[in-house]
Amino acid sequence: MLRIGVIGYGYWGPNIVRNFNTANGSQLTMVCDTNQQSLEKVKKAYPQINVTSNIDELIKNPEVDAIAIATPVFTHHELAKKALEAGKSVFMEKPFTYTVAEAEDLIELAAKKNLKLMVDHTFLYTGSVRKIRQLIDDDVLGRIYYFDSARVNLGLFQHDVNVVWDLAPHDISIMDHVIDTKPQSVVATGVGHFGRGLEDIAYLTFYYDNNVIAHINVNWLSPVKVRTTLIGGEKKMLVWNDIEPDEKIKVYDKGVQIHTKEGKYNLLVDYRWGDMWAPKIDQTEALKLIAEKFVDYVKNGGTILNDGIAGLNNVKMLEAASKSLSNKGAMVYI
Amino acid sequence: MLRIGVIGYGYWGPNIVRNFNTANGSQLTMVCDTNQQSLEKVKKAYPQINVTSNIDELIKNPEVDAIAIATPVFTHHELAKKALEAGKSVFMEKPFTYTVAEAEDLIELAAKKNLKLMVDHTFLYTGSVRKIRQLIDDDVLGRIYYFDSARVNLGLFQHDVNVVWDLAPHDISIMDHVIDTKPQSVVATGVGHFGRGLEDIAYLTFYYDNNVIAHINVNWLSPVKVRTTLIGGEKKMLVWNDIEPDEKIKVYDKGVQIHTKEGKYNLLVDYRWGDMWAPKIDQTEALKLIAEKFVDYVKNGGTILNDGIAGLNNVKMLEAASKSLSNKGAMVYI
Amino acid sequence: MLRIGVIGYGYWGPNIVRNFNTANGSQLTMVCDTNQQSLEKVKKAYPQINVTSNIDELIKNPEVDAIAIATPVFTHHELAKKALEAGKSVFMEKPFTYTVAEAEDLIELAAKKNLKLMVDHTFLYTGSVRKIRQLIDDDVLGRIYYFDSARVNLGLFQHDVNVVWDLAPHDISIMDHVIDTKPQSVVATGVGHFGRGLEDIAYLTFYYDNNVIAHINVNWLSPVKVRTTLIGGEKKMLVWNDIEPDEKIKVYDKGVQIHTKEGKYNLLVDYRWGDMWAPKIDQTEALKLIAEKFVDYVKNGGTILNDGIAGLNNVKMLEAASKSLSNKGAMVYI
Amino acid sequence: MLRIGVIGYGYWGPNIVRNFNTANGSQLTMVCDTNQQSLEKVKKAYPQINVTSNIDELIKNPEVDAIAIATPVFTHHELAKKALEAGKSVFMEKPFTYTVAEAEDLIELAAKKNLKLMVDHTFLYTGSVRKIRQLIDDDVLGRIYYFDSARVNLGLFQHDVNVVWDLAPHDISIMDHVIDTKPQSVVATGVGHFGRGLEDIAYLTFYYDNNVIAHINVNWLSPVKVRTTLIGGEKKMLVWNDIEPDEKIKVYDKGVQIHTKEGKYNLLVDYRWGDMWAPKIDQTEALKLIAEKFVDYVKNGGTILNDGIAGLNNVKMLEAASKSLSNKGAMVYI
Repeated sequence: MLRIGVIGYGYWGPNIVRNFNTANGSQLTMVCDTNQQSLEKVKKAYPQINVTSNIDELIKNPEVDAIAIATPVFTHHELAKKALEAGKSVFMEKPFTYTVAEAEDLIELAAKKNLKLMVDHTFLYTGSVRKIRQLIDDDVLGRIYYFDSARVNLGLFQHDVNVVWDLAPHDISIMDHVIDTKPQSVVATGVGHFGRGLEDIAYLTFYYDNNVIAHINVNWLSPVKVRTTLIGGEKKMLVWNDIEPDEKIKVYDKGVQIHTKEGKYNLLVDYRWGDMWAPKIDQTEALKLIAEKFVDYVKNGGTILNDGIAGLNNVKMLEAASKSLSNKGAMVYI
Repeated sequence: MLRIGVIGYGYWGPNIVRNFNTANGSQLTMVCDTNQQSLEKVKKAYPQINVTSNIDELIKNPEVDAIAIATPVFTHHELAKKALEAGKSVFMEKPFTYTVAEAEDLIELAAKKNLKLMVDHTFLYTGSVRKIRQLIDDDVLGRIYYFDSARVNLGLFQHDVNVVWDLAPHDISIMDHVIDTKPQSVVATGVGHFGRGLEDIAYLTFYYDNNVIAHINVNWLSPVKVRTTLIGGEKKMLVWNDIEPDEKIKVYDKGVQIHTKEGKYNLLVDYRWGDMWAPKIDQTEALKLIAEKFVDYVKNGGTILNDGIAGLNNVKMLEAASKSLSNKGAMVYI
Repeated sequence: MLRIGVIGYGYWGPNIVRNFNTANGSQLTMVCDTNQQSLEKVKKAYPQINVTSNIDELIKNPEVDAIAIATPVFTHHELAKKALEAGKSVFMEKPFTYTVAEAEDLIELAAKKNLKLMVDHTFLYTGSVRKIRQLIDDDVLGRIYYFDSARVNLGLFQHDVNVVWDLAPHDISIMDHVIDTKPQSVVATGVGHFGRGLEDIAYLTFYYDNNVIAHINVNWLSPVKVRTTLIGGEKKMLVWNDIEPDEKIKVYDKGVQIHTKEGKYNLLVDYRWGDMWAPKIDQTEALKLIAEKFVDYVKNGGTILNDGIAGLNNVKMLEAASKSLSNKGAMVYI
Repeated sequence: MLRIGVIGYGYWGPNIVRNFNTANGSQLTMVCDTNQQSLEKVKKAYPQINVTSNIDELIKNPEVDAIAIATPVFTHHELAKKALEAGKSVFMEKPFTYTVAEAEDLIELAAKKNLKLMVDHTFLYTGSVRKIRQLIDDDVLGRIYYFDSARVNLGLFQHDVNVVWDLAPHDISIMDHVIDTKPQSVVATGVGHFGRGLEDIAYLTFYYDNNVIAHINVNWLSPVKVRTTLIGGEKKMLVWNDIEPDEKIKVYDKGVQIHTKEGKYNLLVDYRWGDMWAPKIDQTEALKLIAEKFVDYVKNGGTILNDGIAGLNNVKMLEAASKSLSNKGAMVYI
């Protein structure tokens, strides 16, 4: 039984507590938050879990084997470092850290201490992303042409980061998992509207080799919630609408073939319009799977999708995108 | 009765012929196309209309008072010039021309000859765009924050232009009509997948003063058809889904107010979540209205939304976007 | 070339004229309507077609080989009888006639004269219904459990018939085509709201052998347009949403198996939740296919789906449903 | 603090426990279920709540002030009777009882004992139904023409009751709350497909005075989930789609006026096609509101929407519908 301590019981923390509390192989022993009201919520919902507002008390607690951190990104490096130094593996809320240097530091420290790092790129464990990855592995989609994702809704405005750091870690982790190569560069545009120096709308274009392109549209100022990803492949095309309760993924037998390129007025384009197919998607809560994976990873090692390296890659792309964004779309190499 | 001759009976030409043939005040007298099959279609559908494959025959026809041109963009300047020189006003399919210089030349020539130019920015005459413009005029939306438009579907691949020149003229004309200032610069990204040097996917970001931003997503390689525009305003937000048969426009009483900016951890964000309202949209065919407007404009002058200057502005933005696209997102000032 | 005369150029007549005018093998030679404005519309759109307000002139016209009738149902029998007596095959708008007796009379007369009768049950020729029929023929759906169809929208209120006679002929023709046996009885409920003695809302339940059931919901007073049919089969279930531009038919690999019936508290129900699949639907205009089928039927005979007998069956069910409706749901045997 | 004991921790029981456990003014003290696994779930989720498999232990527990019953309908009367006789008010899962006689017996007993009965017609406390009722109270809809509700999905097949007793209590409670008069009669059709003598599909038509009509479509065998109610009023029409996460209720400014009824060919119908409006809906969990209402009702009395009389009315209509269903649509007066 892996005994978990959780730091941070704000927006996402309750989900982490609930899942580690019920996952096979783990047990929730302590929650730390600086907010007394949050701690009272824990006490009411989980009378058996200890609470504290003192981080050291949690980190040094001998009944805590590993630590999950769900605090603002600016605190990630410091808290994870303390945990690792106390000999405890770390499950970290996304984004992993706020700088590439911080991420590299944690990876190095964990390696030295022979501890594990896992980053909560939850979407990678959803039935939808697992199905997409399987469709690619089975060569159903064929060569990928593009990845185009929109994640827009109203709020929640973050205090300390822009919309890219808040929402794009999801899309970037999925993009990075779904496309088999790494992007070379990024062009990011966007603005903020509330005089805070923090963008609330941003558009990221990632250029890959071989004319593969990825685009991510993140927006805190939309009246409607959109969670849609298009993936165009040579053989099939796919739409993932995460808002749909059922039929989240639709695979279209549609495509284009261009037969001759000689004279521009002799262009012959074949359009293929075939059936659509919505595979059944496993509905297991991703965070439950991820919690059980973390237990297994800490105990038995092996490889996982969302280790520190994956977290680092994510931060690299966020950092590059932010730099491009500040420079109004100037290309930044990754 | 304004007698109209139409050059080009390909994809869009039949709509132009049908509308000018039935519009109040106009009469269709001749159609020219180099393709004999197209001309036979005209003869079958409109036995009373003359046809020719000789452009000069149409242009010099004394029974043709004004000329509508629906041919590939590369031919626009040459054909319009001939028509103007023959003393005939011109209705031009979008995009107006392929270069800014060509557009300026036509405007100058028309002015000298005291003739009229109208560009077929059809969407400006749809019930939806008229309603959006009215909501802005009535200050329902308040100050505009952003304009975000997606126009994606499978095909039709064009022979000679990329997806920006094919699809974005629509979005740019609407953006230009809806936002009251002009963009300062554009950043465009995208790629082509078929070795033709022509992009089939592109993303355009237009930067305006005062943190207004516009984004246009055009894509020939999507399995699904999307025609959606979001407009975020300070008072209300709007979604225009042009694929919906009814309820094309939804106005959301949603918004954000940020009260204090002092300490980053004291951010107070108020979200307003109110009713949604879908105003009735006039369903009159836009091309019918535009045909009647053209008749009126040629006969009585006045001002119109879609004159040569509007066409020129559109081409300026297309040209700038193309330049940025070729340079992988390098900002281009307009 | 079969030369067609059309009686009635009101709501549906223009579609009949347009399709017989362009169908392979037919030619439209004359249109009759008592309304002069309608005739002027014909003249404007089809200068080559003769018009008349005198029915006898059309029926006796030697340049008319066969007659299509698109007039109110009360006139069907009289007009078709005249046409048949003049030696001309008849294409009849649905519903075939207003009484079973009238339908039988026309069938008998046509047989005696060796002429053909075809009823415009257009939906049977749509890509959607052809696909449904094919799925049944290929035993994809398995044994049919039920057929449930809703056809509701605002208007068009008819002068002379209730909503059952106006809308249900469509659903009944599809039901009759899709279910391989005939219903035994019908229970119909509904009311009218405008003091005319004509129902504007009605619900029809058809009982078949073996616990097969069909339900039809027709309504002129709905704010939204619904055209949805559910077909439950033992192996698969199907939803046909005719308002969807694409993906009109969705086939669900869903079902139920009940394993034991012994003790009521030992009920074991297996639910099958599998993939969904939207087969490509042929988009050819049904009325075009039906026009060409009519030409072939008149010339070469053979069997068709929508002959006089099919029309008669349709009228039998309408008559029975109307009788049940007048008696507030009293069961009527068919 | 009203101390609640709950009998039945199956499908719905956990929701009742969760809500009474957190509602203002109530406290959950004991849960009874005959299934040990269910009791273990209670212990895990709520270590502080006592459990028992002995009903009498719960009913006679002095730390239980009132009892909530969430067991199969056949047990309702017996259990409620015991509870009332033990001097405890009862919150009863729908349907109230399986016969009208049982309902009347409980109402009489509660009155004699001066105890309270509340039936869990949850939907009456949803934001959607409260909004609909308000729109009627404010005369936004005008005179009601019809109520048409569909509640279909795959499963859950019940052991002991047909689809009418399982699903229709919801629709009937809403119908009864929304229409200001009582229905006179019902016609119900339907069948079962699994040889159990229990219908899995049913259609209920309720006839009211003044040509008001209500229709309810319940189906356990549908591949898709539908929860849609149409309400047609003289002034406005309304669609409630309970599956929509937002915009559950849309109010249409659409309608029909018929001007002359004299000659049937002079019918003048005016269609009004105006705006659509989706009022904001309160998202508070209905069961939370209902739990707090129960506490208030038991302590302070007053009137509530869903008292024993409301439960009795519901059972009357279910009983009548079942009788009609068994007789294949024979009208049953209520």
